[in-house]
Amino acid sequence: MITGNTELIAHIGYPTHSFKAPMIYNPYFEASGIDAVVVPMGCRPEAYPDLLRSLFRLENVRGALITMPHKVATVALLDEASPTVQVAGACNAVKRGADGRLVGDLFDGEGFVRGLRRKGLALEGARALIVGCGGVGSAIAASLAAAGVSRLGLYDIQPQAAEALAARLQAHFPTLSVRLHTRDPQGCDLVVNASPLGMNEGDPLPIDMDRLSAQTFVGEVVMRAEMTAFLAAAQARGCRIQVGADMLFEQIPAYLEFFGYPSTSADHLRALARLSY
Amino acid sequence: MITGNTELIAHIGYPTHSFKAPMIYNPYFEASGIDAVVVPMGCRPEAYPDLLRSLFRLENVRGALITMPHKVATVALLDEASPTVQVAGACNAVKRGADGRLVGDLFDGEGFVRGLRRKGLALEGARALIVGCGGVGSAIAASLAAAGVSRLGLYDIQPQAAEALAARLQAHFPTLSVRLHTRDPQGCDLVVNASPLGMNEGDPLPIDMDRLSAQTFVGEVVMRAEMTAFLAAAQARGCRIQVGADMLFEQIPAYLEFFGYPSTSADHLRALARLSY
Repeated sequence: MITGNTELIAHIGYPTHSFKAPMIYNPYFEASGIDAVVVPMGCRPEAYPDLLRSLFRLENVRGALITMPHKVATVALLDEASPTVQVAGACNAVKRGADGRLVGDLFDGEGFVRGLRRKGLALEGARALIVGCGGVGSAIAASLAAAGVSRLGLYDIQPQAAEALAARLQAHFPTLSVRLHTRDPQGCDLVVNASPLGMNEGDPLPIDMDRLSAQTFVGEVVMRAEMTAFLAAAQARGCRIQVGADMLFEQIPAYLEFFGYPSTSADHLRALARLSY
Repeated sequence: MITGNTELIAHIGYPTHSFKAPMIYNPYFEASGIDAVVVPMGCRPEAYPDLLRSLFRLENVRGALITMPHKVATVALLDEASPTVQVAGACNAVKRGADGRLVGDLFDGEGFVRGLRRKGLALEGARALIVGCGGVGSAIAASLAAAGVSRLGLYDIQPQAAEALAARLQAHFPTLSVRLHTRDPQGCDLVVNASPLGMNEGDPLPIDMDRLSAQTFVGEVVMRAEMTAFLAAAQARGCRIQVGADMLFEQIPAYLEFFGYPSTSADHLRALARLSY
């Protein structure tokens, strides 16, 4: 129950209707006796910098979960950015450091990779394709590179987004082979939809499914439904898949530690969560 | 349960530990199927103007409940102030009007007066004393004047606060007799503690209890405990009393209407509330 002593974790993005974090964190906080609550804040880009600064001047704001469309814009607002933030050029977690400094980190890539590993996918030397090079796509790219993939294809409808990500990746991972401006899945061990395609009814699929082999592992970041049209089509072709919610659950223990709360396992969080699809 | 579709009512003040509104509104919202939540925001004065403006640029903020120390400062931030706000020089409710305008009103005085009336106190022609002329004291003064009291004593440890309130009152209620700078309760039908005295252990009582008659009705705004030291002392002298929480419950139906939510009775709200003293 929320009282005057409850701490806030602001969940900031726009639109908010597909937010899942409140239904994951809040049942865990309640079950664990942690007096905190995640609250959605629907914020348009033009209002975001002022909002973030104002929120962190509040006494009972412990941190913020940042989602689309603010993950990239957040980087410039930080006083202190983790190495992952620097590589990905995106940030999804902010807390107040010493002297009121804003400290940022990025956990979706780590969550995505943890999920793949739990499903038995070997990433060392793998060839991967990421469609969508915004905040979450950049995060996954940074984490896949750190996990040892040998080749990474990057595609975005805004070519310069893919190019900028490639430059940051190659500065940190000089032996990584980066391929730009193709979304052909042939020959890939892993294909990731990190674009918003699938958020809305009738969206086209992110890749040409006829070029997708059953040996390719397919991952998704869209969480509008547990099984998106893209994942259903991949599964129909025989591919192993990772749903968007897996990335979400696997990254939450890292967030909890970052904010300084007692942490737990992704499985425990999933068992407590009150998500309805 | 909070989801991405939940609307926020920001409850802004500092400190927040004595906030009661979350435990009153939230059980009502839950019981009534209203997808909204009141969340505490501990905001220091220097951070407040930016915070208020930023919050009202959020898509899912329906309104704000304003409490100490921001009720007076809010008036200057409004685009549109109700007559009560103008008289009291204080505001405790803000919503977004047309074109994003900030619209403010003030309900504690109305809540206080409704509570007195329900207890059978006749206010027409009554003589009242208010100790504390900040936001809530000013609100009660405005509502008592509108309810027809004939004489109003105003006392504040900052004399200019009482004087400024007196000037605003007399501009709107020219026949009202205002007495300044005395907190002698003798001869009063009603004495109100609208000061923070009682918020902290060991606070002195707001008036000299030896001068208090059993015929005087005594009201309190402090809600730290159901029965404050002041109310206990008044009751021991035989006075009828009104606890701080009564003002709170009686004003909430007015707030709900102001925000555009389905309203209910103070008794219904009290039955649902999860307050612990």
